[in-house]
Amino acid sequence: MTISVIGSAVTKFGELWNKSLRDLAREASLMALQDANIAPTDLDAIFFANMMASNTSAQAHLGSLLASELGINVDSTRVEAACASGGLAIYRAAESILSGHYKKVLVVGAEKMTDLVADTTTTALMEAGDEEWESSFGATFAGLYALIARLYMHKYGATDRDLALVAVKNHYHASLNPNAHFRNIISVDDVIQSSLVASPLKHLDCSPVSDGAAAVVLANSAYIKNKHQVYLIGSGSATDTLSLAQRPSFTSISSAKFAAKQAFSQAKLTPHDIGIAEVHDCFTIAEILAMEDLGFYPEGQSVKALRKKETSFGGKLPINLSGGLKGCGHPVGATGVKQVVEIVKQLSGQADERQANNANIGLTHNIGGSGATAVVHILANKI
Amino acid sequence: MTISVIGSAVTKFGELWNKSLRDLAREASLMALQDANIAPTDLDAIFFANMMASNTSAQAHLGSLLASELGINVDSTRVEAACASGGLAIYRAAESILSGHYKKVLVVGAEKMTDLVADTTTTALMEAGDEEWESSFGATFAGLYALIARLYMHKYGATDRDLALVAVKNHYHASLNPNAHFRNIISVDDVIQSSLVASPLKHLDCSPVSDGAAAVVLANSAYIKNKHQVYLIGSGSATDTLSLAQRPSFTSISSAKFAAKQAFSQAKLTPHDIGIAEVHDCFTIAEILAMEDLGFYPEGQSVKALRKKETSFGGKLPINLSGGLKGCGHPVGATGVKQVVEIVKQLSGQADERQANNANIGLTHNIGGSGATAVVHILANKI
Repeated sequence: MTISVIGSAVTKFGELWNKSLRDLAREASLMALQDANIAPTDLDAIFFANMMASNTSAQAHLGSLLASELGINVDSTRVEAACASGGLAIYRAAESILSGHYKKVLVVGAEKMTDLVADTTTTALMEAGDEEWESSFGATFAGLYALIARLYMHKYGATDRDLALVAVKNHYHASLNPNAHFRNIISVDDVIQSSLVASPLKHLDCSPVSDGAAAVVLANSAYIKNKHQVYLIGSGSATDTLSLAQRPSFTSISSAKFAAKQAFSQAKLTPHDIGIAEVHDCFTIAEILAMEDLGFYPEGQSVKALRKKETSFGGKLPINLSGGLKGCGHPVGATGVKQVVEIVKQLSGQADERQANNANIGLTHNIGGSGATAVVHILANKI
Repeated sequence: MTISVIGSAVTKFGELWNKSLRDLAREASLMALQDANIAPTDLDAIFFANMMASNTSAQAHLGSLLASELGINVDSTRVEAACASGGLAIYRAAESILSGHYKKVLVVGAEKMTDLVADTTTTALMEAGDEEWESSFGATFAGLYALIARLYMHKYGATDRDLALVAVKNHYHASLNPNAHFRNIISVDDVIQSSLVASPLKHLDCSPVSDGAAAVVLANSAYIKNKHQVYLIGSGSATDTLSLAQRPSFTSISSAKFAAKQAFSQAKLTPHDIGIAEVHDCFTIAEILAMEDLGFYPEGQSVKALRKKETSFGGKLPINLSGGLKGCGHPVGATGVKQVVEIVKQLSGQADERQANNANIGLTHNIGGSGATAVVHILANKI
């Protein structure tokens, strides 16, 4: 049995003060259903990816919430794995079809981050880390990724100007994406001159706090044929220790390596077969680690590729054509789903101004916390 | 392919001030693994059911948390559907095996309710309801279930003394269960004389705020044979509107009816085949609705059965031999898993003082919110 993505959509990402979590989830869902040319009543199940609705909307039970909004009463599950919730929800949704339970299921990822019941967004986001061993000592994710960046720079001779290349590239890509949170082009100097958050990471090394939603409709390929059909041909999901301190290495995320290995094995492909990728650039250093963990570049070599613009629009392996988390925005529960939506739009020739040339196989890489969860999907426009 | 429960365990339920969420989850998990006679490294995946760790422990990302605690790096998912999280996690876990992805998976449900970051437990629990249409207007679950109780009493001539019979029965059963939150036997007069919470519901009509965890190991039956093996032969999951106000009927929960229909259909059984059941008695009225929604009794007739003690220990259809949510306790994420553990212990002859006679088929009924999610499982000790 194979799984197809038969519909996909994203809302605008950004500071969407006039939209609630349920507005965003409903909007993305209805657009994805329209794209799939099916009605809510055609769905067998719903998977809702969200991390922090308890903190932002005083609302749990989101599966039922969305089923109610769509006027249906199907099996509905909220999946949570911090910022990897979206990728993991797609994994579970695909499984529900592979099990034989269902034929068509909706996956929506949505996060409303600009309304907040908790003290600060940073505090709420630290629930993705280890409360006993990280957040209770005052660690933040900018701080944790700064440790990673510092060690990577020391080990491989990279500079903060190299890290900045990720932000510059992803802002450029985002300028081509009408749904992106940021549409402004920035320079390396802009990044370097932006305020320091956690040395060596500056303000423009960090992804923003965004509202937004994304949705896909998955189906058993046997039952569906439509013109935009894209196939989910491999998936992997793995974990690492919740706290960074317990890991043998900071400059590689083992969960991402495991998840990629599973996905490549299932797809019977290697990293060389991938034409485009959406990776989890919550901070600039994270994209550099992803390039190596996924096997696109040897350890310590990604920076050279960034300098040569190999991963920019028009390069040999475009990464984060959506703008990534940095440029497109990072509504955490939505991110993993948005990555798949972007790959689907690219592989089906619907990416407009940012359309990659000749891309037939794409990969998504979605991380929770500082790598405690990783989910990788591989998609293709033919099988 | 069939699914077996090859290991199961519960922690003590109650006010466990010296145990954290991770302590409880680890304890239940290790006991269930020991019961299954396997090591953490034998597991292919983890499913963690929890509703309110954001509010109680400033911690999300619980799949990775538990994987870390067990020293493994497998695919790990938190499943949330309010108080139905446990039942739904088992549903998703079974699916992961049926899909062919995995052979052995761990499901743990855990909730630490006596530590609280939010204002009150009642506020945090209202995230199971509809924030825009219920909690923002001041509704609580005691209030919502009181509306249901009031209407049921009016429609079928039941009294508050009839409702109290549920609490009396479940406290008696809990007195036989060493892991129960409450071990005290109570009378109808005790219930009636306890303080009014939301008319007609008194203090002793309500399930308590408890800490606790429960875990099961599920496996593809083809790979396993052990002496306590119990089979999961049918499951169903459905939703209803998130807010009570949108429903055509208050005296029946349609999601439970749908979920039961699916589970009975999959198991090729009828309500008459069930020997024991664990149902979601968050309030006494909820057990009465369950008895009817599951098809055990016609609408409006459950109270007669309660008066005749048909659902008491030794009766023809014992319900909530664990003590139910009322007597055993209700750590919300743990409840749906604990229900399955109880049925497994009963069907494999391990229920000690509260062992049912000749029970070969059992059912669990797990509800989220005021019925916005319902999950039903049917288990048997032979296939």
